Amino acid sequence: MSDILTIEKTAAWLKERDNFLVLTHRRPDGDTLGSGGALAQCLRELGKTAYVLCNPEATPRYFHCIEPYIAPDSFVPEYIISVDTATVDLFPPNAAEYLSRVSLSIDHHPSNTFYAEQTCLNAEHASCGEVVFDIITNMTDHISPETAERLYIALSTDTGCFSFNNTTANTLSVASRLIEAGAPNKELNKVLFRTKTQSRIKIESMMLSGLEFSFDDKVAIASITRDMLTTSGANEDDLDDIASIPCSIEGVSIGIIIRELSSADRCKLSVRTNVPYSARQICEHFGGGGHDAAAGCIINKPIPEIKELLNELIKNNIMELK
Amino acid sequence: MSDILTIEKTAAWLKERDNFLVLTHRRPDGDTLGSGGALAQCLRELGKTAYVLCNPEATPRYFHCIEPYIAPDSFVPEYIISVDTATVDLFPPNAAEYLSRVSLSIDHHPSNTFYAEQTCLNAEHASCGEVVFDIITNMTDHISPETAERLYIALSTDTGCFSFNNTTANTLSVASRLIEAGAPNKELNKVLFRTKTQSRIKIESMMLSGLEFSFDDKVAIASITRDMLTTSGANEDDLDDIASIPCSIEGVSIGIIIRELSSADRCKLSVRTNVPYSARQICEHFGGGGHDAAAGCIINKPIPEIKELLNELIKNNIMELK
Repeated sequence: MSDILTIEKTAAWLKERDNFLVLTHRRPDGDTLGSGGALAQCLRELGKTAYVLCNPEATPRYFHCIEPYIAPDSFVPEYIISVDTATVDLFPPNAAEYLSRVSLSIDHHPSNTFYAEQTCLNAEHASCGEVVFDIITNMTDHISPETAERLYIALSTDTGCFSFNNTTANTLSVASRLIEAGAPNKELNKVLFRTKTQSRIKIESMMLSGLEFSFDDKVAIASITRDMLTTSGANEDDLDDIASIPCSIEGVSIGIIIRELSSADRCKLSVRTNVPYSARQICEHFGGGGHDAAAGCIINKPIPEIKELLNELIKNNIMELK
Repeated sequence: MSDILTIEKTAAWLKERDNFLVLTHRRPDGDTLGSGGALAQCLRELGKTAYVLCNPEATPRYFHCIEPYIAPDSFVPEYIISVDTATVDLFPPNAAEYLSRVSLSIDHHPSNTFYAEQTCLNAEHASCGEVVFDIITNMTDHISPETAERLYIALSTDTGCFSFNNTTANTLSVASRLIEAGAPNKELNKVLFRTKTQSRIKIESMMLSGLEFSFDDKVAIASITRDMLTTSGANEDDLDDIASIPCSIEGVSIGIIIRELSSADRCKLSVRTNVPYSARQICEHFGGGGHDAAAGCIINKPIPEIKELLNELIKNNIMELK
């Protein structure tokens, strides 16, 4: 079992040591890459040797967060630190050799399995970036613009620019201090939250134009076919969070996107719900799972048949219960 | 000329007086109604009599901010306070009788004309709500949940949930304190920033599907016809900020929406640009005006002819200069 470290003890532990390698998680987001880059930057400013293990799945959107700190093959770390990673199976394949000896896990996920020798966890925080901020400000009075920028990316992307339900007073207070320390929030917000690719605009428009409402507009179902993906040129990045759109429409409580995968008769369902409905309940019916508000499953049938199945399920098992 | 009051003097002035009527501006937004409601609420908590003049244009989206404080016809105020209103011609018609005797203007617009006897202005602040927050916290240590909710609406709506360029470290720091004081940010964000009406979704989808790119995708032009408005059922609220979408697409520097008005040969252009292009330059060519980044004009021609005119103008007068 892992030792649980306070912020103060984590800061002291880091200050007493050197030669760190920071690990980030698979399908990396702004929180893991921003937190990892900020930690490496700050440790270097304190005179330490610190690198981030290259994350092969990092997209151009966030890669710059870790780019200056990518570990060369020759680097032999003494201490391994993970950021924003709740379980060992969430690390990318190139981290395999380090997984049995993670010295410190810095995280905000309540699901952290305490796989590291020591864990610094604050599950109240919206982002791992806030935990890293607490540690850094315990180590030094100075937050550099480079550190501030990366932590701002961590906080803002994990909270949808401070609009998601996980946003707390602490998130906004830390973000305020990061702007004071030089985080270029105007430029970052423009790129991260106020720009869409042409492909995203096209796939979103196609998806929306086929949106079907049912059950007194409580249910909204949209499809994304392989043809639509080809025509729009949309990639995985372009589909980010698109599943949340149907359920963000006024009056809709169950929003579903059916997406064709490798063939027309193999589809992925992304379900989002507002209370009292449960996305998990719907997806578990098809062998999937997830949370009450967001869940998914795979169904080996074509889109029209899936719509019929959903209609039956919602009519007989979901709506009648409310 | 108006006396310029500091925050401290404004707070002292308010504490020494009683019987206030608060005025908000025409086409009222979350900042003027949130600021007005918060000020009235706080003054009442301090034992004062304070009302807000009903704003006939307030939509259900923000009306609840001022609803508990609407002045009865019988109320005879001693002091008139305006919030978020830069000039006298921005008041609604029912404020006419008070305009020659506004005691105090609380504002954040650098364009404030100092029409009031006294002015408390901070043009560094993103929202008038932040100026009201400064005044309130100078009058009392306690911010009630009712006050906090209204000020959160003021701050968040004027900054696009903290994503616009006007957002400062102060905006986020104040928002943090408002959440601590009980502003229900989760519920407010959901309604204000993460919900769209069906009509909005429909008009947005129609607009996007007709989007045309030109000049190496630097220019994006979309149309909104009267037919599209009828089919979608979209009203003015549903069209809010829709003009910013074309210019928010990656690579686009000039985004234009052409909207049919009373007839097919009378259209409104809404132009948005990124540097180095100027929306104002484009609109002035057609007798309109505005800012460098956002401008508008009216053209008495049908959509296809306007597209040709725009194409010529951009080819000959706009693109060649860069």
